[in-house]
Amino acid sequence: MAGYHLEAIEAAPLKDDLDIVIPTIRSLDFLEQWRPFLKHYHLIIVQDGDPSIKIRVPEGYDYELYNRNDINRILGPRANCISYKDGGCRCFGFMVSKKKYIYTIDDDCFVAKDPSGKEINVIAQHMRNLETPSTPHYFNTLYDPFREGTDFVRGYPFSLREGVTTAISHGLWLNIPDYDAPTQLVKPRERNIRYVDAVMTIPKGVLYPMCGMNLAFNRELIGPAMYFGLMGEGQPISRYDDMWAGWAAKVVCDHLGFGVKTGLPYVWHSKASNPFVNLKKEHKGLHWQEDMVPFFQNLRLSKESDTATKCYMELSKMTKEKLTKVDPYFEKLADAMMAWIEAWEELNPPVVDSKN
Amino acid sequence: MAGYHLEAIEAAPLKDDLDIVIPTIRSLDFLEQWRPFLKHYHLIIVQDGDPSIKIRVPEGYDYELYNRNDINRILGPRANCISYKDGGCRCFGFMVSKKKYIYTIDDDCFVAKDPSGKEINVIAQHMRNLETPSTPHYFNTLYDPFREGTDFVRGYPFSLREGVTTAISHGLWLNIPDYDAPTQLVKPRERNIRYVDAVMTIPKGVLYPMCGMNLAFNRELIGPAMYFGLMGEGQPISRYDDMWAGWAAKVVCDHLGFGVKTGLPYVWHSKASNPFVNLKKEHKGLHWQEDMVPFFQNLRLSKESDTATKCYMELSKMTKEKLTKVDPYFEKLADAMMAWIEAWEELNPPVVDSKN
Repeated sequence: MAGYHLEAIEAAPLKDDLDIVIPTIRSLDFLEQWRPFLKHYHLIIVQDGDPSIKIRVPEGYDYELYNRNDINRILGPRANCISYKDGGCRCFGFMVSKKKYIYTIDDDCFVAKDPSGKEINVIAQHMRNLETPSTPHYFNTLYDPFREGTDFVRGYPFSLREGVTTAISHGLWLNIPDYDAPTQLVKPRERNIRYVDAVMTIPKGVLYPMCGMNLAFNRELIGPAMYFGLMGEGQPISRYDDMWAGWAAKVVCDHLGFGVKTGLPYVWHSKASNPFVNLKKEHKGLHWQEDMVPFFQNLRLSKESDTATKCYMELSKMTKEKLTKVDPYFEKLADAMMAWIEAWEELNPPVVDSKN
Repeated sequence: MAGYHLEAIEAAPLKDDLDIVIPTIRSLDFLEQWRPFLKHYHLIIVQDGDPSIKIRVPEGYDYELYNRNDINRILGPRANCISYKDGGCRCFGFMVSKKKYIYTIDDDCFVAKDPSGKEINVIAQHMRNLETPSTPHYFNTLYDPFREGTDFVRGYPFSLREGVTTAISHGLWLNIPDYDAPTQLVKPRERNIRYVDAVMTIPKGVLYPMCGMNLAFNRELIGPAMYFGLMGEGQPISRYDDMWAGWAAKVVCDHLGFGVKTGLPYVWHSKASNPFVNLKKEHKGLHWQEDMVPFFQNLRLSKESDTATKCYMELSKMTKEKLTKVDPYFEKLADAMMAWIEAWEELNPPVVDSKN
């Protein structure tokens, strides 16, 4: 491990610096199992769907809960930028948080065990990932050089060993893998049983499919780019909320010089969603991703965009300019991206971009 | 696993298509332990140092052995391009092989065990890596999608799922990690005990430090770019032979559309070399890599270079043009690169570049 001492993170992982954001349509009984790891943290629950349904939260948890009525009240006309009947509504929680870090988790994810049988402390691992640098400019073959028991290998330039600040920590899932509907249909019984004991930086200029199930990030650095798009009811697309956020946030991280890690920690993903329902939700996305990915791969943000907010505003313009020809939906999405940024700025006035 | 059936590879991994290249200065007793896995293969042993020393090869192995006298005889005036008193001499073996695949291993590497205690069949794993596609254009978060029990995750464009032909499989090392001398000095007791159960593609445009200890590649595709440079006695630099080859071969793979994988299989690296000796050998490299890495990161090969041979000739010119200002050594290296290509062409006349 190259020069970092993280015992403190292990003991009390940044209790006052982290909010946990959970989108849900049901009672949060899954939090019972998470108690040893999540009880110290403040929860921001974003209730999706019918606001009249009462969500039960296990006792002892400190939380605030927002339903659709709350979102409409707080954001006013801009509330339309928050997806309805789609997990993408979670990004409202990112916006109302005041903390440095966000951890977001799906309510069908449970505590996973490492190969020794020990329950995995997801927060501790995500915070280790976020509090140690990333190495996006050159690949280290022994994976995360900032981990205990490893380092940079021979042939790693010394000028690159300082790394860059990490903005995103993307965790993985045992049991049900995060497959699209066609793959689910073809391989209904496939389970992820392989625990890969690694964290790695996704290199600069490389895109990846970011899944929102088990995700942590530094909202001060990258929050404004963590918009989960316009999906669900009233929109032609679902299940691409996290993908959109992942592509956008990666491009913004690359531009601003922040790092993105993937790998540990694992959660136990309990339940495969219905592949036929998923197919209906995502079929346009399966098609559009053939244009969305090259769009993000090829775009170049300007030097003037030196904060996540400015980058995201520029990205909104580019989305309108380049993707509307794929489908008129992208014009709506581009407008929603602007509304999101305006709402973010209003709710997070001076703090967000320290360079401003 | 996306559409590949590899039982055949597991049973008899391409016996007639693979040569094993071993550079050595001592008797090859380490092959005793490798017998179950390597006995079926033809060995090409490149004896470094004093040619009068008799190298013992365990009985039962089929091999050819070349010492310095042989290299001088076969290559004539071009023999200077093969390093002396440096593991880089192994590339002579790549040149005289007639097989499709090369596996090269150091004589201080032994059979490693996976976490279940099973001995690892390095050849089977390397051949699986080489015979299944790579995915250099987009990152798959569940690692190699062509492995049993896994696939492409949600958000992976279908147009990219075919992947590209794999040219290089870079294996790792348990026990003694491949550190440079400064890191060895600072962490004399660090051992790699983490078995990371993954193979991944190194994305296009990303460089990595390729170690020659446990390396397989497709010599038909990339052989001419697998030149281990001019190192050792009479040269100002050592221990950068594999690094040079790795950077060059990666750039050529990226240009030609071939893939590079790293990860499994592991070997057990038994012995740390002397860090003070290493420091002497590599101190110029530690400095020069700050220029060599950006050189490889920024160069663009021309469209006309559509084979590994042509790419490497262009690379030789660029080396002379851009790196000679770092040190006059690079002019010598550039000339040696050309001599290497000429020798390669002479020894591999019609087969190498099927496009010619």
